[in-house]
Amino acid sequence: VVRSQLQFTEYWQGRTGLSIGLREVLYSETSAFQRVEVFETDILGRALALDGAVMFTEFDEFVYHEMIAHPALSLLHDARRVLIIGGGDGGAAREALRHPDIETLDLVDIDEMVAEVARRFFPNVSSSLSDPRLALHIQDGRAFVEEAKGDYDLIVVDSTDPFGVAEALFSRGFYESCRRLLAPKGILVAQSESPFDPSQRDVVEKVSRSFREIFPIAATYLAFIPTYATGMWSFTLASKRLHPLRDYDGEGAGKRLKGFGLKYYNPEIHRAAFALPTFVRHLISDPGDEGYA
Amino acid sequence: VVRSQLQFTEYWQGRTGLSIGLREVLYSETSAFQRVEVFETDILGRALALDGAVMFTEFDEFVYHEMIAHPALSLLHDARRVLIIGGGDGGAAREALRHPDIETLDLVDIDEMVAEVARRFFPNVSSSLSDPRLALHIQDGRAFVEEAKGDYDLIVVDSTDPFGVAEALFSRGFYESCRRLLAPKGILVAQSESPFDPSQRDVVEKVSRSFREIFPIAATYLAFIPTYATGMWSFTLASKRLHPLRDYDGEGAGKRLKGFGLKYYNPEIHRAAFALPTFVRHLISDPGDEGYA
Repeated sequence: VVRSQLQFTEYWQGRTGLSIGLREVLYSETSAFQRVEVFETDILGRALALDGAVMFTEFDEFVYHEMIAHPALSLLHDARRVLIIGGGDGGAAREALRHPDIETLDLVDIDEMVAEVARRFFPNVSSSLSDPRLALHIQDGRAFVEEAKGDYDLIVVDSTDPFGVAEALFSRGFYESCRRLLAPKGILVAQSESPFDPSQRDVVEKVSRSFREIFPIAATYLAFIPTYATGMWSFTLASKRLHPLRDYDGEGAGKRLKGFGLKYYNPEIHRAAFALPTFVRHLISDPGDEGYA
Repeated sequence: VVRSQLQFTEYWQGRTGLSIGLREVLYSETSAFQRVEVFETDILGRALALDGAVMFTEFDEFVYHEMIAHPALSLLHDARRVLIIGGGDGGAAREALRHPDIETLDLVDIDEMVAEVARRFFPNVSSSLSDPRLALHIQDGRAFVEEAKGDYDLIVVDSTDPFGVAEALFSRGFYESCRRLLAPKGILVAQSESPFDPSQRDVVEKVSRSFREIFPIAATYLAFIPTYATGMWSFTLASKRLHPLRDYDGEGAGKRLKGFGLKYYNPEIHRAAFALPTFVRHLISDPGDEGYA
């Protein structure tokens, strides 16, 4: 038994979860809102953890950040105004700002320490924070959307897990405020936890139900994220007008994506991500094209 | 620090991997070929481990077993003769035998202890072992395919990781022997490890290359399997004639699947599973429909 090695374990539930070998704890502070830690890991590069939950690792952050931004932006294909709630690390903004049509991006995070730590330890993730199109607002996301004026083409809810500081970002009232801020063609996207994790399933179901009650079009999509619980992660997209598959121009999207240097998202992945395993369909009461098996 | 709790950790690499809380070790023996363990876990039901690698848990075995069997069988839609190499637990056979057209299924596993343990501890997985259409051969898989006579409609290589006893099941010579045994319309499917795990990537690439060299049609597909390393698992399919997407009749497959009670596979998942993230395309030199981004 080796007793002097650093291990960080993020539990899915009980005593089961991903255990990560660490070389060093680079940073560990408690902000006004949460515990903020940066680890140098053995094999996953650096990792950012908030309140003990991995926000991202350098190994697989590209999946989360590409998949929260590009499906909606490729569907819109000419978004000009973007709002991101949470995501103070700048990762989602980095992906969004690859789209040259974007003129302004408001990034709203309640915790200044997240942006500071991202600037200091994750230059590749936080590079967007110095983009002249980006305005960083250190403010409560819910208050921001209640006071802001439209019209955003895209609103991204890049929240932490639905406890404590992020709980308000999973409420129906918050989503309704987002809807008011959207342009007629606008899209709302939120990370919606893992449908495979029994302790998170009700979140997927609840976000999906809220979106379908508030918007005429709503759909859940999936991506492989190894360092998130179960490795299956969901996002939920809602729209006033555009359907994520019927209105998607894969050929045009493919052309616009050339030169972005993406590692996960491509037009085939766009269509595939919205195909749900049968148990996920059941979970969110989506019969799929063929109905239940 | 709690010192008296049982934990099982399957490392992806180094000190990083999935740590599973255990209630009890139900079985732990060493056969002529490998260590065989059965755990009662906290939240994943029972788990079977061979040489310290999780073969399946009751929590997510449905994904692996459905996805190794149904894509090929739905594409063939009238397979009569099936050969499964490995998979002595009966899980892949259980899924295959849901297709009523199957007349004979040869299941070849080198290690009798796997079938015995599956019968004793995993009745829901091993139920197929008593199906009158199934013949269990306790024999080396490579020797079996070298001596057997065709024509199989489907050959499934349900192997453990490519070390020790399973190494021969990842060789080009073995795949060529499989090809000889296939009917003109026949399909070969193999589990091909995780493209997201740096220590397994060369396996995906090698299986894909071998299949493309030996068969006119070959394609890799993916599924979410939380308890396998990284949660992203690959299978590679090769065929003499049928293309997994162009020759797939989703409507017909959907009708045949009704009543199977599947929890993962459906016709939309079939098409989606073959869409590969850009980094996986690069890994196996597959340009995708739109070329590289």
